[in-house]
Amino acid sequence: MMTTIRDVAKLAGVSVATVSRVLNESGYVSKSSQEKVNQAVKKLDYYPNEVARSLFQKKSNFIGLLLPDITNPFFPAVAKGVEDYVNRKGYSLLLGNIENNPEKEKDYLQIFSQNNVAGVITAVQGENQKFNKIPMVVLDRVDDERKYSVHSDDYLGGQLAAKAIAQRNAKKVVIMVGPTEVNGANIRLAGNEDQLKKENIEYELFQTDSYQTDYAEETAHIFFEKFSDVDSVIASNDVYAIALMKEAIKRGIKVPEDFQIIGYDDMPFSRMVYPGLSTIAQPAYEIGVKGAQLLFDILEKKKISESHIQLAVELVIRESLRKKDENER
Amino acid sequence: MMTTIRDVAKLAGVSVATVSRVLNESGYVSKSSQEKVNQAVKKLDYYPNEVARSLFQKKSNFIGLLLPDITNPFFPAVAKGVEDYVNRKGYSLLLGNIENNPEKEKDYLQIFSQNNVAGVITAVQGENQKFNKIPMVVLDRVDDERKYSVHSDDYLGGQLAAKAIAQRNAKKVVIMVGPTEVNGANIRLAGNEDQLKKENIEYELFQTDSYQTDYAEETAHIFFEKFSDVDSVIASNDVYAIALMKEAIKRGIKVPEDFQIIGYDDMPFSRMVYPGLSTIAQPAYEIGVKGAQLLFDILEKKKISESHIQLAVELVIRESLRKKDENER
Repeated sequence: MMTTIRDVAKLAGVSVATVSRVLNESGYVSKSSQEKVNQAVKKLDYYPNEVARSLFQKKSNFIGLLLPDITNPFFPAVAKGVEDYVNRKGYSLLLGNIENNPEKEKDYLQIFSQNNVAGVITAVQGENQKFNKIPMVVLDRVDDERKYSVHSDDYLGGQLAAKAIAQRNAKKVVIMVGPTEVNGANIRLAGNEDQLKKENIEYELFQTDSYQTDYAEETAHIFFEKFSDVDSVIASNDVYAIALMKEAIKRGIKVPEDFQIIGYDDMPFSRMVYPGLSTIAQPAYEIGVKGAQLLFDILEKKKISESHIQLAVELVIRESLRKKDENER
Repeated sequence: MMTTIRDVAKLAGVSVATVSRVLNESGYVSKSSQEKVNQAVKKLDYYPNEVARSLFQKKSNFIGLLLPDITNPFFPAVAKGVEDYVNRKGYSLLLGNIENNPEKEKDYLQIFSQNNVAGVITAVQGENQKFNKIPMVVLDRVDDERKYSVHSDDYLGGQLAAKAIAQRNAKKVVIMVGPTEVNGANIRLAGNEDQLKKENIEYELFQTDSYQTDYAEETAHIFFEKFSDVDSVIASNDVYAIALMKEAIKRGIKVPEDFQIIGYDDMPFSRMVYPGLSTIAQPAYEIGVKGAQLLFDILEKKKISESHIQLAVELVIRESLRKKDENER
């Protein structure tokens, strides 16, 4: 049963009107009645509403969530995982969609702090990770080792993608590299390069400066202007892979016969497009759930056995890759 | 410049420690000093933090946003529009992803109300639209005429989709109908049917009970089991259209030669898939912006010239439709 203003009045031995006057700080109430009411409020853990509770406890039932790009389907899937867990705990999400805007990120951290959020979950790499006022878990884009984090195995993912390409008669390979400021992109690149070198396969790099959906088609166009003879691509993510595949088809290039490609993420649309996109599957929903779980473990002062949780990645073969070479295992 | 506790102390003619004691209601402060501090706080509009401000004003800087399915790319695009506007106004979003769960919807409205949200923007059709405690704008899925709303022209959209199919040698037409409880789905269906009747084209209906991304592939499979000889489809939305197109290709059916299809929404991926999905474009981002603008017009007590804003839809022709019949204009 929820505590009501009547319960407070009864315990304090005063009228409901008196309790109301004390809570609203309006009208005259004797010092002694004030004290009785305040004691009853404390004893019964009574709060007129969430806002008042938050003010008294200096902690709200909010979790701040920062996403780099809500229109990249990977992040709504992560957000869904976070929300499902947070919601079961009786908490709500304050959403910030950052879009590579450090000012917006700073503003949001300020807002989160002013609103007494219990914790922050961020998939944005940047200054926020140095923000120490509030418990924080970093998802996916980790750049501060001191923080709690959940991410998937980028190095292995990079290796698996390169190996899948290498096994399939790759003649001219281009690695489309994610933004240099994103740690995971650099780690994936290391996995790609180490694997291709091991397999004695030459490659070129195409550096991108964004994962944003908004720039995918433009980037795909520039890519083909630069590499008209490309035969195999390791793409920076699924959105960009799908845009590249479309651009290839538009140019009359046969996928996968003359142009094979592998993405990264495995968002829901990657299996729905044609040809189906081969990719490295990251467990987006699970990253969200595990991140929220880790944050609540911190908030509930549980013993944290793993402060950097690494989830497995998986190679998913669909139609965008050619058949394996005969002489490969 | 932000007002600080020093400004309050100066105006009240007391020490910072006294202001702090009054604000925290701890320690002894004379009645007259209390009054001076309270007056200075009011005059300077000083709030120790957002939570305190919210408590005093009974209104927070939050807007509650309810979405039916964050994994359907139409809604992140709407959310982005809402967030961009709300953010410029110095407000933040409390996010609720509802997924056809009326309990979750009720919980969120409760949470929004307890947290003194200034207003609610909802794209969920249901009980929330009868929620009268807080100013509310309904996006897309409008079912309560008393509410403020922003939606696009579903009837015209339905007509345009049907006309595009009718002009392209349609032999066996199936309309995939969105969930009956969604008003817009019924209005689109009316547009489809009126147009097809006018063109003397026969059709069958395939009723769905969800727009959820999670069920798209399963539904596409069931669809083709039922209508193996279908030649033209008016799909319920782009996600389902893309799933149907993929299922057709998997079954060796040629798109658009033997199977043409038109979607609804025009999400970013609809132009990135192959064949490119023809569709009825709804301005998702603009729906979000206009909805937020309408809500702030209400909050700021501006004169509302239009309480039901209807945005235009547009036919977008891509490769999933056949060429127009020779004898059509």
